[in-house]
Amino acid sequence: MPVPSDTNSPSPYVREKRRKRRDEILHAALQAFRRNGYHATTLEDIARHLGVRSTALYHYFPDKESILYECHQRSLAELDRLMEEARGLDCSAERLSFLIREHVRVMTDTLDGSPLAFEVTALSEEHQQEVISARDRYERELRRTIEDGTSDGEFRPVNSKVAVFAILGAINWIARWYRPEGSLHAAEIGAGFADHLVGGLVAR
Amino acid sequence: MPVPSDTNSPSPYVREKRRKRRDEILHAALQAFRRNGYHATTLEDIARHLGVRSTALYHYFPDKESILYECHQRSLAELDRLMEEARGLDCSAERLSFLIREHVRVMTDTLDGSPLAFEVTALSEEHQQEVISARDRYERELRRTIEDGTSDGEFRPVNSKVAVFAILGAINWIARWYRPEGSLHAAEIGAGFADHLVGGLVAR
Repeated sequence: MPVPSDTNSPSPYVREKRRKRRDEILHAALQAFRRNGYHATTLEDIARHLGVRSTALYHYFPDKESILYECHQRSLAELDRLMEEARGLDCSAERLSFLIREHVRVMTDTLDGSPLAFEVTALSEEHQQEVISARDRYERELRRTIEDGTSDGEFRPVNSKVAVFAILGAINWIARWYRPEGSLHAAEIGAGFADHLVGGLVAR
Repeated sequence: MPVPSDTNSPSPYVREKRRKRRDEILHAALQAFRRNGYHATTLEDIARHLGVRSTALYHYFPDKESILYECHQRSLAELDRLMEEARGLDCSAERLSFLIREHVRVMTDTLDGSPLAFEVTALSEEHQQEVISARDRYERELRRTIEDGTSDGEFRPVNSKVAVFAILGAINWIARWYRPEGSLHAAEIGAGFADHLVGGLVAR
C-alpha cells in the first residue's frame, strides 16, 4: 500500500480515504436529518452513528451548517449535470421525462430521501442565496423545456409556471413520505412520476 | 336588532356574531402561520393583528394548538364533503378532476395558502391521530378513484399509490410557494393541476 512521502500533498490513497470518509459523514447526516429533522440533529448524533467522537468530524466539517451546505451543493451539482445531459436528448417530452426520473433519483439516492428541500432557511445567508439561485436556474430550465414542447406542438398550451409547480411539488414531497426500506422502489417512483407528469402535458 | 333574553341559549344574532369572530381569528391565525410559521407565532401576534388583547382570544380558543386544530378540522371537513359530492359525478376522470380542483381551493382559500400540511406534529397526540385518519381516508378515496378509472379503461394501468403521491405532493406543495397577492389565481392553479394530473392518467 502506498505511503505518502509528502504530507503537504496527500497521496491518492489518502485522498480517496478522505473522500470516502466525507461521503460516510454526509450519508449518516442525511439519515439523521430524515429521522429527526435538521434542527434536532447534533454533530454528536452523527458521530455516534459513525462510531467516532464528534471531534473526528471537525476534521472534515467545521459545523452542522457546512454539512447541510455540502448536501445541498452535491444535489444541485447533480441537477446541473442533468440539465446538461437532458439538452442532448431528442424532444421535449424525452427531456422532461429524463429530468423528472433523474431528479427523483437524486431525492431518493443522493439525498437518501432526506427532507433537504425543507431546510434552506437553516443555511447561512450567503449559502441560502447560492442554493436559491441554483434552484431558480433549474426551475427556469423546466419551464423552458415545457414552453419548447408547446411551441413544437408536442405539448398542449399550458401555463408553464403552474405545470412546473405541480412537477416540483410532486418531487419535493417525496421527502415527506419516502422510506428507503419501504415497498416503493426509487426507479418505480421515478418512472411513475415521469409518465404521469409528462403524459399530462402531451398534446393529443 | 334582537337582544338575547336568555344568556344560557344565545340568540341567533349572538351566535352569528360569535361565529364571525371565530372566523376572523382563524383567518388572522392562518395569515400569521403563513408569514412566520406556526411555532414562531404567538397568540399575542394574532391578537395584535385583530386589534384586540390576547385575553379576548381566550374566550374563543384556550390556546394556539386549539386554533391549529380547528383549522385542520375545517379543511378536513371540506375534504369529506368533497368526497361525498365527487361520488355523484359521472366518471372517474370527472371525479378526480373535481377533487383536485376543489382541494386546491381548500388550500388557497379555506387555508389561506397556509403551510398547514406541514404542522401536524404540533397537534396534541389525540388530535394528530384524528387528522392522520382523516387524511388516510382521503388518500384512500383518491386511490380508489384512480383504480376505478383503470378498471373501467378510462385510465391507463398505474401504481395508484405512486399516482396519489404525485397528486398530493403537487397540491400540498402549494403552501410553499402560493401568495394570495401573487399573480397566479387559485382557480387557474386548480384547473391547471386538474388537467395536468388527470390528463397524465387518461388512457390513450
